[in-house]
Amino acid sequence: MSHKTQEPVITKISDLPLEEARWVTLKKIDYVDQVGKARSWEVAQRKTRGKSGVDAVAMGNILLHPSRPASTLLAAVREFKEETGYDCVVKSVSPAQSADPGMTNANMQLVMVEVQLGEGDEEPEQRLEDGEHIQRVIVPIAELYERLVEYSKQERMVVAAKLFHFAAGMEFARTQTYFK
Amino acid sequence: MSHKTQEPVITKISDLPLEEARWVTLKKIDYVDQVGKARSWEVAQRKTRGKSGVDAVAMGNILLHPSRPASTLLAAVREFKEETGYDCVVKSVSPAQSADPGMTNANMQLVMVEVQLGEGDEEPEQRLEDGEHIQRVIVPIAELYERLVEYSKQERMVVAAKLFHFAAGMEFARTQTYFK
Repeated sequence: MSHKTQEPVITKISDLPLEEARWVTLKKIDYVDQVGKARSWEVAQRKTRGKSGVDAVAMGNILLHPSRPASTLLAAVREFKEETGYDCVVKSVSPAQSADPGMTNANMQLVMVEVQLGEGDEEPEQRLEDGEHIQRVIVPIAELYERLVEYSKQERMVVAAKLFHFAAGMEFARTQTYFK
Repeated sequence: MSHKTQEPVITKISDLPLEEARWVTLKKIDYVDQVGKARSWEVAQRKTRGKSGVDAVAMGNILLHPSRPASTLLAAVREFKEETGYDCVVKSVSPAQSADPGMTNANMQLVMVEVQLGEGDEEPEQRLEDGEHIQRVIVPIAELYERLVEYSKQERMVVAAKLFHFAAGMEFARTQTYFK
């Protein structure tokens, strides 16, 4: 973004009654458990799930450039093209996964995409909606894990758990000695 | 569990007003954004966060056995010893991560642990609380990703996204050709 920007500031946190909530809600699930006992569970739920049955998609992305290391782009990831400006090719689509089981019924899929750049390609323009403030951060894939750990140490920064777990899995596979 | 068990059955799903919810709640966050505009965001929140400031810990675990492949144990993971019966050694603790950003302020840490087994060790006893029905499934680490994809295809099965992302990261590191 080229606007002059500032850190966002929280001005108020208040209880949100169900009848005023537009995007999320709470449900009580009554169930009979594995040994026949009646129990209940509390969950948060998105109100926005559509026909696809999937609440969100995460885009694992690889940027390939003739003379730079294969990299990945950190950005909020619902709308890759709009938010990053890059065209991409889908390489794989995961099954639906439970975003945060126990807490919510929200689910998601992991889509891996590849972006092929040319030597002289300039950074494309983002098309952000009003209120979206998304910074593009490009990180060499080989350095992803250590960069996320570094970010986690900074104030006002928290890394999304799914991204962190993907990076931790990569790091584990690269450094483990349990199997070849 | 040695009890005779059945599949759990949902009997009712109902709205859960804030004043009746014990474990989760909804909050409205008012804030001033990066360009000075007043906005609001709706989040679900756990009511149970303690002094540690961390809502949950995931236990990435490795079972080492003299004559079997290094494996990992799939189980709900808040209380590894109680739920699985295994003693473990902590190998690493991640920074706090955002469990499902946008949806909730819930956070978590990833703790990697190792369990060293002897040749003749029997499977230890689980100590489950009333209402916990946790099945221990041991999977060779090298097969984790493909097993999770298989599970995802089964009815009444959904894989937790953080586990899936860790496995996807491992698989990516093992099969990618972008860097060495």
